[in-house]
Amino acid sequence: MRVGELSRRSGVSVPSIKYYLREGMLPAGERTGPNQADYGEDHVRRLRLVRALLDVGGLSVAAAKEVLAAVDGDVPLYEALGAAQDAVVTVPGGVSDEAAAEARAKVDGLVARRGWRVTEANPGRRAAADVLATYARLGWPQFGEAIDDYAAAMEQLAAREVESVLSGTDGGGRERAVEGAVTGTVLGGSLLLALRVMAQADASARLLGADPSDKFTTDS
Amino acid sequence: MRVGELSRRSGVSVPSIKYYLREGMLPAGERTGPNQADYGEDHVRRLRLVRALLDVGGLSVAAAKEVLAAVDGDVPLYEALGAAQDAVVTVPGGVSDEAAAEARAKVDGLVARRGWRVTEANPGRRAAADVLATYARLGWPQFGEAIDDYAAAMEQLAAREVESVLSGTDGGGRERAVEGAVTGTVLGGSLLLALRVMAQADASARLLGADPSDKFTTDS
Repeated sequence: MRVGELSRRSGVSVPSIKYYLREGMLPAGERTGPNQADYGEDHVRRLRLVRALLDVGGLSVAAAKEVLAAVDGDVPLYEALGAAQDAVVTVPGGVSDEAAAEARAKVDGLVARRGWRVTEANPGRRAAADVLATYARLGWPQFGEAIDDYAAAMEQLAAREVESVLSGTDGGGRERAVEGAVTGTVLGGSLLLALRVMAQADASARLLGADPSDKFTTDS
Repeated sequence: MRVGELSRRSGVSVPSIKYYLREGMLPAGERTGPNQADYGEDHVRRLRLVRALLDVGGLSVAAAKEVLAAVDGDVPLYEALGAAQDAVVTVPGGVSDEAAAEARAKVDGLVARRGWRVTEANPGRRAAADVLATYARLGWPQFGEAIDDYAAAMEQLAAREVESVLSGTDGGGRERAVEGAVTGTVLGGSLLLALRVMAQADASARLLGADPSDKFTTDS
């Protein structure tokens, strides 16, 4: 199909398609003339994945590129899974102060307590320490006390997530398996935060009383 | 203090400070001359909060502006808390297809099953439905089956989060309370995803075997 039909089929505008081509996020079509190329079903599927990572997964273009490089590269499944896991957290430029050192020690302690097999380079370590250090710098160190509860909840979910991604991707070939791993890992983070927003709204309504003008679906 | 000292004290560059002033995210200083203004400790604290929301919380400038408007506005605490909760999820432009309608029904069913008091307008509803619809469109509907596990975990954490934010913000006046609510709510999401990355890496290592060149802190 031509680029116009690819755009209609995928719901992605032609300028965006050209941008993804330039950035290497979408493989080139088969050249059929000086200014024409032919695209196939693989391109439609890839565009849907690209938009899922950016729009629904909330990844930056840079993070999506790294994840797609793992999909396309000839790397083992666990490496692709790791790239998808890492893409979900952004690690800000670090400040080296007392709060940062203390926060790092707290995260190291948590990892040891739970017996997690986590490399020194795992971006979750730095990202978690950054949150704890920021809590301390802003004068709210007590918010960091929830870290053990958070970790227990994530540990339970992560085991099932990884199992589900691995078992769900059986039998479709390597590329399909890696796509599934990336999709489940990245979008699962968005799903979790979406449910957290609803659960928090419910907890706020119960604890604070809600705006009486709001309309609730349940508990009316 | 002058803008140069404000920059040194807060670790934020002068061009960034000027940008936040233009965007209304930082209140103007007291004018002391045609091209000079005087800033105080409130400005240092506000800059730290702005950078925490953007860098550590991962909010967009637009989302951070909405949260800060709630901090500055004379709104009740539960509204500021709601603004912070909402800022954490981004709701992409919706597609109306069969997958979207089915996904929306699944989220409505979940909310009813759990008895959550959640308004129709809560962005978590739309964001959760978008993930489920995207799973279906990409051919991985089975990943949506984890939604009840996710919801149960988030419900348990959210109740404690909201309680901790409310009890931790007692006695500091309205502005300090709202700042605390915003900080705990936004940064808590980042902490959760950071811990999820580590928990997933641990689960992957256990299920798939890890790269033998990796160095683990525990379980060596």
